[in-house]
Amino acid sequence: MHVLVTGAAGMIGVKLVARLLAEGALGRRAITRLTLHDVVEPAAPAGASVPVETIAADIGDPATAARLIAARPDVVFHLAAIVSGEAEADFEKGYRINLDGTRALLEEIRLAGEGYRPRVVFASSVAVFGAPLPEPVPEDQALTPLTSYGTQKAIGELLLADYTRRGFLDGIGIRLPTICVRPGKPNKAASGFFSGIIREPLAGIEAVLPVSEDVRHWFASPRAAVGFLVHAAVLDGEAVGPRRTLDMPGVAATVGEQIEALRRVAGDAAVARIRREPDPTIARIIAGWPRAFAPERALALGFRAETSFEEIVRAHVEDELGGRLPT
Amino acid sequence: MHVLVTGAAGMIGVKLVARLLAEGALGRRAITRLTLHDVVEPAAPAGASVPVETIAADIGDPATAARLIAARPDVVFHLAAIVSGEAEADFEKGYRINLDGTRALLEEIRLAGEGYRPRVVFASSVAVFGAPLPEPVPEDQALTPLTSYGTQKAIGELLLADYTRRGFLDGIGIRLPTICVRPGKPNKAASGFFSGIIREPLAGIEAVLPVSEDVRHWFASPRAAVGFLVHAAVLDGEAVGPRRTLDMPGVAATVGEQIEALRRVAGDAAVARIRREPDPTIARIIAGWPRAFAPERALALGFRAETSFEEIVRAHVEDELGGRLPT
Repeated sequence: MHVLVTGAAGMIGVKLVARLLAEGALGRRAITRLTLHDVVEPAAPAGASVPVETIAADIGDPATAARLIAARPDVVFHLAAIVSGEAEADFEKGYRINLDGTRALLEEIRLAGEGYRPRVVFASSVAVFGAPLPEPVPEDQALTPLTSYGTQKAIGELLLADYTRRGFLDGIGIRLPTICVRPGKPNKAASGFFSGIIREPLAGIEAVLPVSEDVRHWFASPRAAVGFLVHAAVLDGEAVGPRRTLDMPGVAATVGEQIEALRRVAGDAAVARIRREPDPTIARIIAGWPRAFAPERALALGFRAETSFEEIVRAHVEDELGGRLPT
Repeated sequence: MHVLVTGAAGMIGVKLVARLLAEGALGRRAITRLTLHDVVEPAAPAGASVPVETIAADIGDPATAARLIAARPDVVFHLAAIVSGEAEADFEKGYRINLDGTRALLEEIRLAGEGYRPRVVFASSVAVFGAPLPEPVPEDQALTPLTSYGTQKAIGELLLADYTRRGFLDGIGIRLPTICVRPGKPNKAASGFFSGIIREPLAGIEAVLPVSEDVRHWFASPRAAVGFLVHAAVLDGEAVGPRRTLDMPGVAATVGEQIEALRRVAGDAAVARIRREPDPTIARIIAGWPRAFAPERALALGFRAETSFEEIVRAHVEDELGGRLPT
């Protein structure tokens, strides 16, 4: 089968491609061809055993979708997106990439016709929800985004459901929890510290904590996120029914619980590298975010995440640090 | 103030314009100018005391929004839409009018700039909800449309909220119940019989009832719908908060209750004009629709509908039949 990944140069995209190549199959079907798209040329994976084509193109350019769908991939992982902060800073760019780009992809699939009906896995986000929210957020909670990014993802979910209902494609949307621990450098995202307070101490570096320890949030590891995507690609669409987007499982943890998990994995010395520096702006942004979910549908459909924040920390140590802890 | 009505030639549009001209004001502000848009030339109301411009243009044509917004109307009633059945039959036309047309209007307002921030009243629909649904449907129920029309209205709601949050306009969406009794000829809409079984007997004509008497649905009169629109134009946006679209109040009534209301207003002879002719297709479509709401927010904000189906029948007799009952 032919698999297309948009946004393949992003953190999750790279890990997804590595897993697809390592397994060589999606479910029982062998992967025979990979197309990797991003706005920058995705790195062609070394030693891939199947043909890999890389395409650098702006998904907001109407010609891009036609180019991506021309070869009629069997599975499309649609990860390409402008992130939350940028979509808020640049209104037009956010709508052009996150809404028009997604719609162009769905339209190109519809117009391909001749029985073409690929599985489309759409990476949505818990940013489709905004306060006030019940805790945990139940299935069938109204989408009440408080950002343009969340609005664009919510619209993508609605389009995915309608195109699926009309029989143009077979879509599954997954609302990803905050991915933690994100590898790489610290960034300026409001959510950055959730990863930073684990990643930096494990690398022997000081981290800043801008909120109080009772702040609670909803997490899954990069490894779990890749697992969600792969599972969404192979699961039986009939079992999902008309509501095509699912809250993904995750771990609800307070910052205090994050820190205690870090202590259990790496000791007091690691925890001592966390410096408190309250930031009311970040605290206010995060107060609007969902804190926990009751993802009963996804669990019943076989989606699995970590079950404790300590598991999330250990996944990071294994996957990013080669199992080595700071000394 | 300058008021723009899109879809002004439609049943609700005509009644809204008549009320605006009769009252001469929206809240405390005098109406000094009216612009009436539709895809066919709206009839210019006779004897209007303020300048009335009529514009016949396709709202799906990108040039139309620019033409409508150029004069910077203070209030925009956005009623123009392809109806449910047509949006389902013609996928591209539905998206072009109901999604692209709405977005073009919002974009034109955003791009006008220079502090322009009109009140935009968006006519949404209970079609944004699809079964299975709790009864009554609570506030904050997830939008789960089962038609392309419902999907397009749900997307319009999301855009309205984001454009409002960003300060580009001041939007209020209202989810209209099924409007009953619709005046005019019988039509082929699946919901047509809800009006037909009242309207036809009151006109001395036979009506067909395709479903059983225990079917329950959510209604408001055309008069109430116009009242919702006017109230949405004048209410305090701050009081609405970030969730800009509201379930409108209405009357939950079974078909049996409709018929009993008809009997109380017009007697057994009218009821005898209803002929039962079960139609499983219509029954199946209607089974997916919401049956009752708990519109607490709208009621708290001062929206008012009829409180019994008998009131709805009497509104029809007063507004459409000059108070005359069949003899």
